[in-house]
Amino acid sequence: MTPRWDHLLINATLATFAGDASYGLIERGAIAMHEGRIAWIGPMDALPGDAPSLAAHVEDLGGALITPGLVDCHTHLVFGGNRAHEFDLRLNGATYEEIARAGGGIVSTVKATREASEDALFAQALPRAHALMADGVTTLEIKSGYGLDVDSERRMLRVARRIGKALGIAVRTSFLGLHALPPEYRENRAGYVSLVCDDMLPALAAEGLVDAVDAFCENIGFTLEETRRVFDRATQLGLPVKLHAEQLSDLDGAALVARYRGLSADHLEYLSESGIRAMADAGTVAVLLPGAFYALRETRLPPIAGLREHGVAMAVATDCNPGTSPLLSLRLAAGMACTLFRLTPEEALRGVTVHAALALGLSDRGTLEVGRRADLAVWNVNQPAELCYWIGGSHVLRKLYVGGEEPSPAS
Amino acid sequence: MTPRWDHLLINATLATFAGDASYGLIERGAIAMHEGRIAWIGPMDALPGDAPSLAAHVEDLGGALITPGLVDCHTHLVFGGNRAHEFDLRLNGATYEEIARAGGGIVSTVKATREASEDALFAQALPRAHALMADGVTTLEIKSGYGLDVDSERRMLRVARRIGKALGIAVRTSFLGLHALPPEYRENRAGYVSLVCDDMLPALAAEGLVDAVDAFCENIGFTLEETRRVFDRATQLGLPVKLHAEQLSDLDGAALVARYRGLSADHLEYLSESGIRAMADAGTVAVLLPGAFYALRETRLPPIAGLREHGVAMAVATDCNPGTSPLLSLRLAAGMACTLFRLTPEEALRGVTVHAALALGLSDRGTLEVGRRADLAVWNVNQPAELCYWIGGSHVLRKLYVGGEEPSPAS
Ligand SMILES: [Zn+2]
Ligand SMILES: [Zn+2]
Repeated sequence: MTPRWDHLLINATLATFAGDASYGLIERGAIAMHEGRIAWIGPMDALPGDAPSLAAHVEDLGGALITPGLVDCHTHLVFGGNRAHEFDLRLNGATYEEIARAGGGIVSTVKATREASEDALFAQALPRAHALMADGVTTLEIKSGYGLDVDSERRMLRVARRIGKALGIAVRTSFLGLHALPPEYRENRAGYVSLVCDDMLPALAAEGLVDAVDAFCENIGFTLEETRRVFDRATQLGLPVKLHAEQLSDLDGAALVARYRGLSADHLEYLSESGIRAMADAGTVAVLLPGAFYALRETRLPPIAGLREHGVAMAVATDCNPGTSPLLSLRLAAGMACTLFRLTPEEALRGVTVHAALALGLSDRGTLEVGRRADLAVWNVNQPAELCYWIGGSHVLRKLYVGGEEPSPAS
Repeated sequence: MTPRWDHLLINATLATFAGDASYGLIERGAIAMHEGRIAWIGPMDALPGDAPSLAAHVEDLGGALITPGLVDCHTHLVFGGNRAHEFDLRLNGATYEEIARAGGGIVSTVKATREASEDALFAQALPRAHALMADGVTTLEIKSGYGLDVDSERRMLRVARRIGKALGIAVRTSFLGLHALPPEYRENRAGYVSLVCDDMLPALAAEGLVDAVDAFCENIGFTLEETRRVFDRATQLGLPVKLHAEQLSDLDGAALVARYRGLSADHLEYLSESGIRAMADAGTVAVLLPGAFYALRETRLPPIAGLREHGVAMAVATDCNPGTSPLLSLRLAAGMACTLFRLTPEEALRGVTVHAALALGLSDRGTLEVGRRADLAVWNVNQPAELCYWIGGSHVLRKLYVGGEEPSPAS
């Protein structure tokens, strides 16, 4: 008799995040995977027949927790060099000006990224992606934005795609041409915005390298008007938008991205009540980035109570980047969201699963439900809150399934 | 011809922490290990002869960083259960009183520890020790203090010793009978202090289970006078002392431990100027615990400037414990010491190597120098500051040597 399913995991604690209550918890549960999808899920008692005969592989997990594979929906994972020396200088008392004079800041990352070959960028980024996987990530967003010319932005996005293939995980790319003004356009902002909108974005989109379009809307970044230009072009190309908004000041960026029915507005420490309402109306996800808040020692919290009150979905991401958040664990980001932002563990974990998937426009993952992708994280703990409670710890993850199979990195 | 050395690592960046300057850095360096000790260290150019013929094993590290194996000098790693449920309740708005009524707080850890067999305690603690090793730890202090009766304290200390043997790393034990008042002595503080001083400590010391004696001197813990009683007994038994001091208030505990020429005073957020002077005079190490500061969202910083000014050696530790610091990475603790306490990366890294060894009374490790134990951490980074800069990341450590050999956990 042919087994019904490829894999059946029994005696597991399942945090499904299906429904609204209590982690969607199923104690003494079972989950079946078949052809890359979840084929059955429920309490073991309700399994249709005798477990050993139901699947080609059956595994007893001894009560271990299973969650959806984690989704890191905001990273700048691909970059050349790092900024540890700058970190050291600053802690030794150097001012931002002195660091800039010493060639530091984002300019140094742009320079190192431009100078790196595709293979070199890949070799540097791969271990970082691997570190995220080692703490539960099966879907990963990666932005461009340190190239700032068409060739270098292309190289970043190609490396992002290669990482997904090499590690057997899903990578979604965001084009972030409006991340910083490149040095050669210092006197010509409009010219750079035109280059991004008229050359870079159409070319890279045509090459299939762009899943969404992002921008850094901030006093030290780009204006609302400049952001609107790139959003208009994205819309013409049929690409969804998202935005770095209200991190250091309130420019009303969240309301702008909501007007475009954008996927997400990210950071949001200075988000206003009207911004919250606009996001709620548009179904735009609030992506919280506690790693940057921690590393920059910010004190102004995002308006969590208001987001809750208006039912805005909250996601949590690493923001992994060399300048303001060299954070290599999404599980730790979820813990920081609890400790620093006072999210409940359930909110934080929805934030790295179902709401993070939503922030990427993905409705086929982020919960454990029949028909969803069989992207699973199996943990060496028994209760969901432990994922946020332990700070660090290489032993918390037991293994991953991606599309129903354990990924075997080709690296 | 017999090689001079067992192992020779070449083409390494060596952060020796010997001397006072700049990480004690040796670029393009080599380090030889023989019979468990460091037999030679210096620039490759100065190697006496042809590298391949010098040692039985020669390895080219391609520029990778080597530091002394990290020393975690303050942990409560052995405990029953965990407090993730309490963490969850608190973030869902429960008050401390409600949590206490629900059986939470340290009492719940004491209960779970007392109920656990030695094997069960060992099985729970081993993965935590393994997680610390996975981020560079080769020497680990473990305290008792959740048993609070002679049998349970003995069980904790025996488990601590077993962990060292199982993982092939060095474990130092501290007896922390004066950690909390056990429920059965709620009406008889003096009786419990007598039990600790007259029964528990002498018995456990006689069994070789105690390397140092610690206490929790705090308004919610034990008084100066009670602490003095256990310190006097420790001194009679020839055991060094250390102290949880000035975490939540200034009880002058640091000055007390200094009077006993104690190894360390730990926490120290409320340490006074006179406490600093006393520690400086006695050579008592200041152990900083940023994990507890982070998890408790404290705002009062330890007096770093004063400690620097008076030349008090600063160590950094995880304080790994289930209530106030479920922190499983000493490297992350060092990063927190930079980000939260504004230590320089060099201070933080001296804090988890040479100064941490000092806080345990160990002069045979913590630097890379000829004659020291060959306890080494080899990292996948090139500059020391990266160890503090990256937040999390399972890929940062490449491998360890303990006593000149790569540990092969017997677990
Ligand atoms: Zn970002
Ligand atoms: Zn402690």
